[in-house]
Amino acid sequence: MSSLLFQEESLRTFTESVFIAMGCEEDDAATAADVLISSDLRGIDSHGVARLSGYVRLWEKERINPRPNISVVHETATTATVDGDSGLGLVVAPFAMKLAIEKAEKYGSGWVSVRNSNHFGIAGYHAMQAVQKDMIGFAMTNASPLVAPTFTTERLLGTNPMCYAFPAGEYPPVVVDMATAAAANGKLEIAQRLNKSIPEGWVQTNTGGPSTDAHALKSGGSLLPLGSDREHGSHKGFGLSATVDILTAVLSGANYGPWVPPFVAFLDPLPDLPGKGIGHFLGAMRVDGFRPVEEFKQHMDQWIGRFKAAKPTHEDQKVIIPGEPELEAEKIRKEAGIPLTDAVVRDLEELSIKLDLDFPSGL
Amino acid sequence: MSSLLFQEESLRTFTESVFIAMGCEEDDAATAADVLISSDLRGIDSHGVARLSGYVRLWEKERINPRPNISVVHETATTATVDGDSGLGLVVAPFAMKLAIEKAEKYGSGWVSVRNSNHFGIAGYHAMQAVQKDMIGFAMTNASPLVAPTFTTERLLGTNPMCYAFPAGEYPPVVVDMATAAAANGKLEIAQRLNKSIPEGWVQTNTGGPSTDAHALKSGGSLLPLGSDREHGSHKGFGLSATVDILTAVLSGANYGPWVPPFVAFLDPLPDLPGKGIGHFLGAMRVDGFRPVEEFKQHMDQWIGRFKAAKPTHEDQKVIIPGEPELEAEKIRKEAGIPLTDAVVRDLEELSIKLDLDFPSGL
Repeated sequence: MSSLLFQEESLRTFTESVFIAMGCEEDDAATAADVLISSDLRGIDSHGVARLSGYVRLWEKERINPRPNISVVHETATTATVDGDSGLGLVVAPFAMKLAIEKAEKYGSGWVSVRNSNHFGIAGYHAMQAVQKDMIGFAMTNASPLVAPTFTTERLLGTNPMCYAFPAGEYPPVVVDMATAAAANGKLEIAQRLNKSIPEGWVQTNTGGPSTDAHALKSGGSLLPLGSDREHGSHKGFGLSATVDILTAVLSGANYGPWVPPFVAFLDPLPDLPGKGIGHFLGAMRVDGFRPVEEFKQHMDQWIGRFKAAKPTHEDQKVIIPGEPELEAEKIRKEAGIPLTDAVVRDLEELSIKLDLDFPSGL
Repeated sequence: MSSLLFQEESLRTFTESVFIAMGCEEDDAATAADVLISSDLRGIDSHGVARLSGYVRLWEKERINPRPNISVVHETATTATVDGDSGLGLVVAPFAMKLAIEKAEKYGSGWVSVRNSNHFGIAGYHAMQAVQKDMIGFAMTNASPLVAPTFTTERLLGTNPMCYAFPAGEYPPVVVDMATAAAANGKLEIAQRLNKSIPEGWVQTNTGGPSTDAHALKSGGSLLPLGSDREHGSHKGFGLSATVDILTAVLSGANYGPWVPPFVAFLDPLPDLPGKGIGHFLGAMRVDGFRPVEEFKQHMDQWIGRFKAAKPTHEDQKVIIPGEPELEAEKIRKEAGIPLTDAVVRDLEELSIKLDLDFPSGL
């Protein structure tokens, strides 16, 4: 796949202009663009501007409200439920995370479950808001059903990511940001574009058989939970995904399981929905609610240092600390620019024509 | 393996008498016994009375303090750090969970990190304390290093379990209680006793190669994280295990990574420990901090019902809801008795002789 490099700022300006064309307030457009550009900077190409036209299509179908009245519908000192009023998850989740952080500042911790939202981008972005305040950040979302629980052929769960983010001292923060499926859908899309087969254990066929076909989902197959099969712990991946679904949706009043509305605009939501939109769960805990921040950071550094020094299986392949690859990508891309594949560039150019906006030229 | 059945109450009385012989207060002995018997009732044989002689050996080595002064060393409205004073985790963790629940009652949520503790039994026991109060329960612990992170041959992490427990309505609670390794050590022990090989993806050799040898750990091998290899997401299993290690130990001041003291008494802790004992993390969130309890339970029932009704891969193998097998075991064993293998019975009989206690006869 050939790709073209774009400067962070020009891509950010374009992304903001798209959200403003949808009718978003300027502040909201800036926040939403920041989530997407952060994803592209961090090397998670599947969740950045590559999704922009998808958000626009959902808005065209009136499934995204560009001017939501985001509100707190239920609350205690340290918990809350937020209704996103069908807004962009890219805007609703930062609202909820801000609330969680405010509660943590007052009471030590804060937890916000969100209903009636849409796709929120990368979980890591939201969890890292807490890290900047010397807090531990949590972020989860449910998502369109693509994953079959152990022993079934039905897609009942999304790739339902969970993120835990921890501040460190000399070292950068530890950010565990992971789909609870064996492989995220983005990995299948890469194999599809390259016309390559995929490893066994990522997907199953429509009858639950093994498959190495990157297109298996198109013929009724499904993604498998982390662990891949029962013998290797797929019931644990299912349990984690179920945990995300319950905390984000059963707790907030969003849709769960097979009822989560699809991200793709060409698929309609199911009838008789049990909730509103999709759900998120955001949390923050003050480190100094447990021990002094400097002490914690010093031990985080000792933890990270010890793991980085571990004896590698192959000399050229050291232990990767969670969050490290994303930070390395960010350093490189802030300098050299963000690479977009030809397909994404074409998609964004078409979007710019449709919305009568200037699309930036590559580097 | 042949086994003998024991009545719950007679096994409980014996277990209490062992803890009292160690010098525990009666209340503490009853609590500790309740955790172990609950594990046996729930079918998690590896974490019940089979471990009793292990606790005694740690006490003999003065690594378990039978009369701990468990104290809160740091606190906010909703967070706390507890020092277990080298007490039994079976006693320290219930103390910490009680504190988390009290904080949740007042402020919506409560979170307690624990240092200077020992093995706490099954995570599910502790998380379920919150469920009884219509709260969502969380429980994690770190453990002796047996698991090698992705790309290394060193054992740096325990099987570090995490548990999330949710109340339901008509259906029993959903309890996700899982080791973050591909397979818990107990599964290897079963294969060892049966002289059987294990599936690839559970362990690696001392050089990081694949292995199906149930004895691989004895020759320098290690358990693998959930996901088994990089291609199938072992970096996610590593990330989850790291999350547990940080929340339980870096946050509390316990030992982490390779410094976690071994459960087996014949191995001494490493020199220059960075913390005290092992660490736990317990949490509780009031359901009605987010939405009315009855509404939540109604949707939990709809969630569970939908997943139970999913089309199975094989007709005789339905979706298993997390927590369901343990509850079924409990129903059967409360009625028919708890089966103990000959090896465990012999071990307990020897213990009874050593401590001059009556060992109950089987059914």
